[in-house]
Amino acid sequence: MGIRHLIDFCDMSLEEWNDLYTDCCSIIDRPEKFIDACRGKVMANLFYEPSTRTSFSFQTAMLRLGGSIFGFSDPKQSSIAKGETLKDTVKMCSGYADVLVMRHPREGAARAASLYSDVPVINAGDGGHLHPTQTMTDLTTITRLRGEVGGMNIGLCGDLKNGRTVHSLIKALSQFRNIRFFLISPRELSIPDYIRAYMQEHNQWWIEVTGLDATMPQLDVLYMTRVQRERFTDPLEYERNKGVYVLNRRKLRNAKPNLLIMHPLPRVDEIDIEVDEDPRAVYFAQARFGMFARMALLRKMTSLPRLVPEPAAIGREPLCRNPNCITQTEPYLPPLVSSVGGMECCGYCDKRL
Amino acid sequence: MGIRHLIDFCDMSLEEWNDLYTDCCSIIDRPEKFIDACRGKVMANLFYEPSTRTSFSFQTAMLRLGGSIFGFSDPKQSSIAKGETLKDTVKMCSGYADVLVMRHPREGAARAASLYSDVPVINAGDGGHLHPTQTMTDLTTITRLRGEVGGMNIGLCGDLKNGRTVHSLIKALSQFRNIRFFLISPRELSIPDYIRAYMQEHNQWWIEVTGLDATMPQLDVLYMTRVQRERFTDPLEYERNKGVYVLNRRKLRNAKPNLLIMHPLPRVDEIDIEVDEDPRAVYFAQARFGMFARMALLRKMTSLPRLVPEPAAIGREPLCRNPNCITQTEPYLPPLVSSVGGMECCGYCDKRL
Amino acid sequence: MGIRHLIDFCDMSLEEWNDLYTDCCSIIDRPEKFIDACRGKVMANLFYEPSTRTSFSFQTAMLRLGGSIFGFSDPKQSSIAKGETLKDTVKMCSGYADVLVMRHPREGAARAASLYSDVPVINAGDGGHLHPTQTMTDLTTITRLRGEVGGMNIGLCGDLKNGRTVHSLIKALSQFRNIRFFLISPRELSIPDYIRAYMQEHNQWWIEVTGLDATMPQLDVLYMTRVQRERFTDPLEYERNKGVYVLNRRKLRNAKPNLLIMHPLPRVDEIDIEVDEDPRAVYFAQARFGMFARMALLRKMTSLPRLVPEPAAIGREPLCRNPNCITQTEPYLPPLVSSVGGMECCGYCDKRL
Repeated sequence: MGIRHLIDFCDMSLEEWNDLYTDCCSIIDRPEKFIDACRGKVMANLFYEPSTRTSFSFQTAMLRLGGSIFGFSDPKQSSIAKGETLKDTVKMCSGYADVLVMRHPREGAARAASLYSDVPVINAGDGGHLHPTQTMTDLTTITRLRGEVGGMNIGLCGDLKNGRTVHSLIKALSQFRNIRFFLISPRELSIPDYIRAYMQEHNQWWIEVTGLDATMPQLDVLYMTRVQRERFTDPLEYERNKGVYVLNRRKLRNAKPNLLIMHPLPRVDEIDIEVDEDPRAVYFAQARFGMFARMALLRKMTSLPRLVPEPAAIGREPLCRNPNCITQTEPYLPPLVSSVGGMECCGYCDKRL
Repeated sequence: MGIRHLIDFCDMSLEEWNDLYTDCCSIIDRPEKFIDACRGKVMANLFYEPSTRTSFSFQTAMLRLGGSIFGFSDPKQSSIAKGETLKDTVKMCSGYADVLVMRHPREGAARAASLYSDVPVINAGDGGHLHPTQTMTDLTTITRLRGEVGGMNIGLCGDLKNGRTVHSLIKALSQFRNIRFFLISPRELSIPDYIRAYMQEHNQWWIEVTGLDATMPQLDVLYMTRVQRERFTDPLEYERNKGVYVLNRRKLRNAKPNLLIMHPLPRVDEIDIEVDEDPRAVYFAQARFGMFARMALLRKMTSLPRLVPEPAAIGREPLCRNPNCITQTEPYLPPLVSSVGGMECCGYCDKRL
Repeated sequence: MGIRHLIDFCDMSLEEWNDLYTDCCSIIDRPEKFIDACRGKVMANLFYEPSTRTSFSFQTAMLRLGGSIFGFSDPKQSSIAKGETLKDTVKMCSGYADVLVMRHPREGAARAASLYSDVPVINAGDGGHLHPTQTMTDLTTITRLRGEVGGMNIGLCGDLKNGRTVHSLIKALSQFRNIRFFLISPRELSIPDYIRAYMQEHNQWWIEVTGLDATMPQLDVLYMTRVQRERFTDPLEYERNKGVYVLNRRKLRNAKPNLLIMHPLPRVDEIDIEVDEDPRAVYFAQARFGMFARMALLRKMTSLPRLVPEPAAIGREPLCRNPNCITQTEPYLPPLVSSVGGMECCGYCDKRL
């Protein structure tokens, strides 16, 4: 794998992903062969906000490779939050660890960490921005259970406006041939314009609908997400909509026999518990595939040598206006600008400058 | 061992317990032979309420077998509590782990977990209901230090009304031949009727007394528990009683030279610190035996294969009226009824329906 | 190593320290040779107050030796604080562990723990009293980067009154030949009299100054510490002083080319971020050396056999008047008195009786 850090799923080429998936399958098939793969290696689990599922998945991935873990799960409980910069925490922890796994409430935090770390950084979620190992989880589930990703009719259902999981998955799936997207959501919660622009640019087939029933028979994958009351400007609109996006047995009557029902978890009530016994419900298997995908990733990343990064320039004031960008709270970060489709964007949070 | 989960100590036959105890002795005698016994295995430590001693004992047991651990020690600190059912947490964690160790404030929680888990579940305490590994700890201590359990005069002293430790120990000891119970407590805190019924049914010898001194010379084991002020309806009654149940050197003058003084810990002031130096005081050794007993148990349980449980029916309303029963907060649980002595009882919390 | 516990750096002879440093260098040179050095060993990490950096350093040290860890990082989150004596917690944990690492807000806590523990105790900081592994960290950094400690000009800068790190380092360095101390601080925050007495007694060369600039060219080591506003009785005095003790590039212009800039971390603003890129800034390397020093220590300590300590006398009232002494909250501790230079001192906190 050519990459040193995994900040964005798109940091990987499709070829790199295929290699990683092949490794992942070897682990799934013979996990006992890998129980010493990371022996003597240490992972720092730096969770600046709680995220039990993601943290457990990374932890068990590392432990099943024979590696070990230290870190924090909520900095409020830890003195690390007290007046130390992200840079200093990263420098210290990268002195102790062989890989850093970082979850942070601010967009671009993992990218910022990668500027200072002597060891690889894995983004375990940076605010509403990116969550590349969830995308790895989703692709592994589909590929492993259906043989391949290409040629699928993918239904994405629920809140498509706010879900970074969905946005990231659309971008990743667009790299495979012959995918058709069925985007099922209330109008208020449809996908953002920049995702539409992305799909157009990549000559992607898609359709946007508000109802689940009519679309169901066509789907190979149904990816459910939660519709939260607080996302609606009009509470009545929520009341009108909420039942539409709850999956139950009745709605599955016309579904394909080999449909994959997926969900990033935790679910609240968007999938009725009666669906769990349906063999097409794979959301718990999906969580387990996520562990295996992270095992493949950690094995690769911990095999990279320590490397002191190039000195970074010292910023004096943030360029970016996004109030959730990491540059707002870590003003010493060097000013990074990326160009996306001719527009200048923040090199941390990817928002337009 | 024929059992797949350990929810109740009585899930084991006496023969199964003897096998487990034999394994435990092998570990005590040669711990260095077992440092790889659980290599590559992962334990989920799911503590829905804090219990430092039990958690430490399970953790060190697993670590000394070369296994590893993830989990939480208090769900308030974790997002796991946020709107996810016990079922979903168990499904997810049993995808990551080889064994689940669960502590929960609600009665029947471990039984409920066992319906959904793909891996064995060990009950580390479910409300005031059961705590089978404490019973294993107590039996291991007595057997290891006195050669056998049968034929002993067992004194149980303190709050015998509310202590699940004591109830569980009485039921377990009743399986051995020729045990005599000396139940020493204030009248207000004497053993509940169902334990008396149990002993009668098993032709058990017992006596109930309020004083410790006169009984002392007869005892082979003195099992102390705490008498809490808040358990008394009358505070004056507490004041009159508190000194009676505090063990000190003076009260031990007439005790047998090979008496075992036991306590489940933590003690507050029910055993004076001066007793610690008495060679008959084995409560700290008892805690260490608990670790070895859990090592034997974890070794067995992690050797069982993964197994997707049978689909469970979906409950719609709890049958049980016990406000502390797990069915009160997890209404989807299938209605389970057990028959105990001709009476219908809740299959989770064992309370009469 | 002849010592059984490490409570005070001075528990070790210079020869014992040299042996430990030699071991540490072997680990730094070939860490992969030591990944099984503590296989099967368990460390209890008993942090009665949060200290993320120290805890991470000890944890990663143990993990890199193939050992494992349990413990708590803040007893408020744990039931361990609830009405259990330090003695009982130590007895229990030393039954589970092979070494105890203790951080405690009270002075003398680690010494108290060593009276009851069946396994070695390492002091990871006891209030404002001692922190021997920080001193090990500092000596390792200087020796490793400069070949030896003797003959150095050591600048200690900042709050020299309240910093136990600095006091402990001065005492340790005084054992080496031909050290010259440059003590740079505001007058209000100069070193305490007992350190001056110590240096005089050991025929130590030292000078006390208030400015950094004039001293800079002479220094081989510059050890920075934080100057906190709340330490000043007069806020104006703080405002006048604060800039003087902030290190930046300009102040380093006249420094030696092989100066070592050290800091115990976390820094707040006493070293400007622009200094980080200077090759003489070794504070992040110092944190990593601390991990290696703790690896050498843990390897030694976990090789010692279990040993039940001699029965301790039972105290009834504290001798010591220091309100932060551990004897104030654990009144059963035996009365310990040590004689320092003809004066009677508390055997726990070393304060004069």
